[in-house]
Amino acid sequence: MRAWMTAAYPICRSISGDGVRGTLDLLADVLPDGATLERTGVPSGTQVFDWTIADEWNVREAWVRGPDGQRVVDLADHTLHLVGYSAPVHARVPLEELRRHLHSLPDRPDWIPYRTSYYHRDWGFCLRHRDLQGLPPGDYEVLVDATLEPGELVYGEVVLPGSTDGEVLVSSHVCHPSLANDNLSGLAVATELLRLLAARPERRHTYRFLFAPGTIGSLTWLSRNTDRLDRIRHGLVITGLAGGGPLVYKQTLRGTRTVDDAAAHVVRARGGEVRPYAPWGYDERQFNAVGFDLPVGRLTRTPHGEYPEYHTSADDLAFVGDDELVDALDALVEIVDVLEGDATYANLSPFGEPQLGRHGLYPTTGGHSADQEVMAMLWTLGLSDGITSLLEVAARSGLPFADVRAAADRLCAAGLLGPRPQAERSATNRASDPIEPKTSPVKSSSSTVTP
Amino acid sequence: MRAWMTAAYPICRSISGDGVRGTLDLLADVLPDGATLERTGVPSGTQVFDWTIADEWNVREAWVRGPDGQRVVDLADHTLHLVGYSAPVHARVPLEELRRHLHSLPDRPDWIPYRTSYYHRDWGFCLRHRDLQGLPPGDYEVLVDATLEPGELVYGEVVLPGSTDGEVLVSSHVCHPSLANDNLSGLAVATELLRLLAARPERRHTYRFLFAPGTIGSLTWLSRNTDRLDRIRHGLVITGLAGGGPLVYKQTLRGTRTVDDAAAHVVRARGGEVRPYAPWGYDERQFNAVGFDLPVGRLTRTPHGEYPEYHTSADDLAFVGDDELVDALDALVEIVDVLEGDATYANLSPFGEPQLGRHGLYPTTGGHSADQEVMAMLWTLGLSDGITSLLEVAARSGLPFADVRAAADRLCAAGLLGPRPQAERSATNRASDPIEPKTSPVKSSSSTVTP
Amino acid sequence: MRAWMTAAYPICRSISGDGVRGTLDLLADVLPDGATLERTGVPSGTQVFDWTIADEWNVREAWVRGPDGQRVVDLADHTLHLVGYSAPVHARVPLEELRRHLHSLPDRPDWIPYRTSYYHRDWGFCLRHRDLQGLPPGDYEVLVDATLEPGELVYGEVVLPGSTDGEVLVSSHVCHPSLANDNLSGLAVATELLRLLAARPERRHTYRFLFAPGTIGSLTWLSRNTDRLDRIRHGLVITGLAGGGPLVYKQTLRGTRTVDDAAAHVVRARGGEVRPYAPWGYDERQFNAVGFDLPVGRLTRTPHGEYPEYHTSADDLAFVGDDELVDALDALVEIVDVLEGDATYANLSPFGEPQLGRHGLYPTTGGHSADQEVMAMLWTLGLSDGITSLLEVAARSGLPFADVRAAADRLCAAGLLGPRPQAERSATNRASDPIEPKTSPVKSSSSTVTP
Repeated sequence: MRAWMTAAYPICRSISGDGVRGTLDLLADVLPDGATLERTGVPSGTQVFDWTIADEWNVREAWVRGPDGQRVVDLADHTLHLVGYSAPVHARVPLEELRRHLHSLPDRPDWIPYRTSYYHRDWGFCLRHRDLQGLPPGDYEVLVDATLEPGELVYGEVVLPGSTDGEVLVSSHVCHPSLANDNLSGLAVATELLRLLAARPERRHTYRFLFAPGTIGSLTWLSRNTDRLDRIRHGLVITGLAGGGPLVYKQTLRGTRTVDDAAAHVVRARGGEVRPYAPWGYDERQFNAVGFDLPVGRLTRTPHGEYPEYHTSADDLAFVGDDELVDALDALVEIVDVLEGDATYANLSPFGEPQLGRHGLYPTTGGHSADQEVMAMLWTLGLSDGITSLLEVAARSGLPFADVRAAADRLCAAGLLGPRPQAERSATNRASDPIEPKTSPVKSSSSTVTP
Repeated sequence: MRAWMTAAYPICRSISGDGVRGTLDLLADVLPDGATLERTGVPSGTQVFDWTIADEWNVREAWVRGPDGQRVVDLADHTLHLVGYSAPVHARVPLEELRRHLHSLPDRPDWIPYRTSYYHRDWGFCLRHRDLQGLPPGDYEVLVDATLEPGELVYGEVVLPGSTDGEVLVSSHVCHPSLANDNLSGLAVATELLRLLAARPERRHTYRFLFAPGTIGSLTWLSRNTDRLDRIRHGLVITGLAGGGPLVYKQTLRGTRTVDDAAAHVVRARGGEVRPYAPWGYDERQFNAVGFDLPVGRLTRTPHGEYPEYHTSADDLAFVGDDELVDALDALVEIVDVLEGDATYANLSPFGEPQLGRHGLYPTTGGHSADQEVMAMLWTLGLSDGITSLLEVAARSGLPFADVRAAADRLCAAGLLGPRPQAERSATNRASDPIEPKTSPVKSSSSTVTP
Repeated sequence: MRAWMTAAYPICRSISGDGVRGTLDLLADVLPDGATLERTGVPSGTQVFDWTIADEWNVREAWVRGPDGQRVVDLADHTLHLVGYSAPVHARVPLEELRRHLHSLPDRPDWIPYRTSYYHRDWGFCLRHRDLQGLPPGDYEVLVDATLEPGELVYGEVVLPGSTDGEVLVSSHVCHPSLANDNLSGLAVATELLRLLAARPERRHTYRFLFAPGTIGSLTWLSRNTDRLDRIRHGLVITGLAGGGPLVYKQTLRGTRTVDDAAAHVVRARGGEVRPYAPWGYDERQFNAVGFDLPVGRLTRTPHGEYPEYHTSADDLAFVGDDELVDALDALVEIVDVLEGDATYANLSPFGEPQLGRHGLYPTTGGHSADQEVMAMLWTLGLSDGITSLLEVAARSGLPFADVRAAADRLCAAGLLGPRPQAERSATNRASDPIEPKTSPVKSSSSTVTP
């Protein structure tokens, strides 16, 4: 992940142009055998819902030369120096006029800010406030050797087919220039997750990785897939997975999706935090717009805007810890394991506790307290009414999902757990009523049965 | 408000009689042009649900003269000196017998208590405990020159018509004698609210102000309006708006009415408190009786019985702070603004976030964090599914309702928000499902949709 | 209760055999006139759901003699010395082999542990660790003069008929040897409760007391009553009612049964604790298995496994406090009183507060704050809409159930409360809507109406 980020860091990315293409090339380079990056290019001028795809932006050179002829700002030094989507210009301007095009951070005089102007044609440079203050009066030569012309918006997708058509969408934006946490961290971890999933002999869900420019990119993808959106069963926007702080899961619009429960279960057990949905942030706000209402949450560490390095040159490769990337990857694998492993079973020996010992599942000397493995089996048997899912069993019992899943496997193998046998169960009086787990009140409220 | 209270303070009010008539006169005097106080008189003996309207009580003079011929208690000094509804008497009684008719507060020897005996024919006087203890032995002359005869119970109403028949009921009791917080404060603030509402060019709801004697007055009004009670959409009993402490909103019987949400939103933001319903207090207990079950909450400051000055002569004009009245009035105006402004819209550009900049609604340079105005627009767009109301948007977002209402106005003007377009929305897969806001679980539980 | 426990303590009980029979004899001895202990014997080998009834176990003598011929462990000294269901043996074994059959508690060297081996044929002895360490090397003579032969599993039932067929099940296990808290305390308190209930002139519910061996005993009872389980309206497993700590109520699987609300109301008011269901513990885990899903909670003091004396010789008669037994009995009587007294009424004077004074129910001088008796009447009138139960009134008001029940009795006698009069109520606009009390959200969610 470190190597990939180091290679991708210097590229001058924006929402269109060769920077995105180059980054997709780097992603394609590290894909495992059998996985293909499929690219889609959509022409400038195409209407995408309320938006229009802008002209493609490419830049060759951009600098400001001082009264003494020395370059005071140069895109070649740092991709953040140029305001994204700056229009071409070559002019000589006095300092006073130049300053209206310069952006700096007075509070952080050593950091270069990140600015863009996608939908307002303008040009500008970003620089350290310390450097800005040192600019002598006089005339400055400004060059932005860029093209802003009809072209295309490009995004990439990698699909790992599963045994069902139901998809898990993993989306990570690909439009930010030399900013390491936001979002090379997301791209690097997504790619590694993709490699781990590709190596699995079996996948229940189909996994779709989307690498698209922020906002307009995800909207464009949505606009070209409106008839297939109902395939998305779960989704995660992943970005900003390093830079300090615990993992933070942001819920979907409804906050009651399976991905919300799965991510909350994993993230909280790892000391992370769960936050309610808010209609700003990254591309989750597009997926969760009321017209789409997709079950897509978001995983970050400290969210955007809450750390000072956000959208500045201080978000560099040193800002991203290797252990943070590994921890985020581990959490994602655990979330995927929940999504893959969650299922609903019926206790096939529902009339009282089965004699676990007889099935080779229990210590034979009584009087001891049940150990965690036995507890996981008892919880799974005790709540599996054909309606309550394993994830709900994990939530109510406080046990890790993996333990509950393992217990379910042992019980299935022993013939004590399986699909709900309709005929048998209807023989008893209340067996058809669902259980209402106290720990998931939202879910249970819909399954309330009044006697 | 201060001037009105000062004028109304000396009047000897009770649940019937000229004191109520005189107070209604004072209220009529300060009504704005076009607003009329309509009075209703209902004869003594009329059956009102479980109650019967008592004879009308009027008193000319009432005093106790000591053994030395000096008056030791005199209604002319303070209206609280006479027990309300005291029967006429003129007698000479020894001190021992007199004491059985005297009420004082041993713990507050300088305060006169407030006592009534509406439904048990008796007479009595209230006095400072200090004075009671100084009474010498001997014979006392007692005079209560009162009439307790068939007459009528009187209440007043002012109606400000709105563009709909749906009514907001504002009720304030008019039966307490010289007690300033309970309830001249309620009457003064209600009148001022009435003036502010009358001055509005437009009102969505019809506003009905009810000035009636406590309990029997509101019951009489209810008995004469049973066929029109379904017009009451929201209601507030207002009383005790001064005397210290934060604002306290008492919920309706159900606790889930719009007025509960509106008042909670406003009162909590002002540092006030929300309490659940309890079946005692002021007239809210009549409006919320199970047979009526009207959506009427109550606004006070420290509630009755929780401050020592309650129902004593210490609840005088000095006990009522001008700033408290103004603050209560402000809160009421805010609650009214919510009731007037709350509505449910549909995002007309629901497929992803609209390009606010293109509609003139967004700063054009990206990279900054959204300011509060933009946040209000994003929340309103993000939750407006044609089911979720603006008040729910405010509750979930934590934004003031006024900001959300202003955002909705801007978005409506820009064509991004409007009534739900049935045909269009049915084209997408889940667009017809309601959003379940986490922050209003009671509401959301009814809109749970399992995919 | 103390005398009964003292008599029952020395008996060597297990899940079958003469110990159970002898204990049932002792229970039968203390039954009140008219109450009969009905015994059921089910043959060994009978299939009971996933289980098979084991051979019956009886033991005459069991000891270990040391190299010097002295008995080092002897069942005659303490029933815990022999592992329950030990197979017959008479052998001479060296110390090393003997040790594999000995159980002790290194951390509690003076206590004898309790062990059983019901379903794994073996023999063993339990002894003080101090004694274990003092055993000299050499050959030991081991005798277990026991029979493990086809016989029967025995349980006893006492039924106190009520005015309805609906049953309250009170279950207490009868299989533990000389352990006083677990479970002579449960048996003693159950018997005393039975005597108190038998003495009542009237019982609304039928009470069924079940005295059965743990797990296999309750399963056997369930297997023979599958067609009658729907009669069980409420139930409690009672055990471990002494030994320190506050009362602890463990909820049913659903946690929303009437017995859950009743027990929570009583136990919390007495400073006790309410815990959610977990699928292990005593026989509640059989009654709450998904196939039965019966409304049976559990009452204990500090639960099994949470006190060091659990399943050791330290759980002796001195470990059980008389005051603890009396307190537990009082709590059970209160819970029974709730189950007997809970009912749903309609306010027959629902249009405003009735004039309590006119009905002889209210102090006649106004201006005082309502006392607790009046509060209970006002709450009962204020919430009795024909749907909300008295227990819900108690929960929402915070008043003891007994006060609410007494208020309902007074109001019924005064004709203010009674069965819901259908015709009258339909005359008002919203009277048919249920009330949703904020304080019992689980219940109220079931009365949610989806538009």
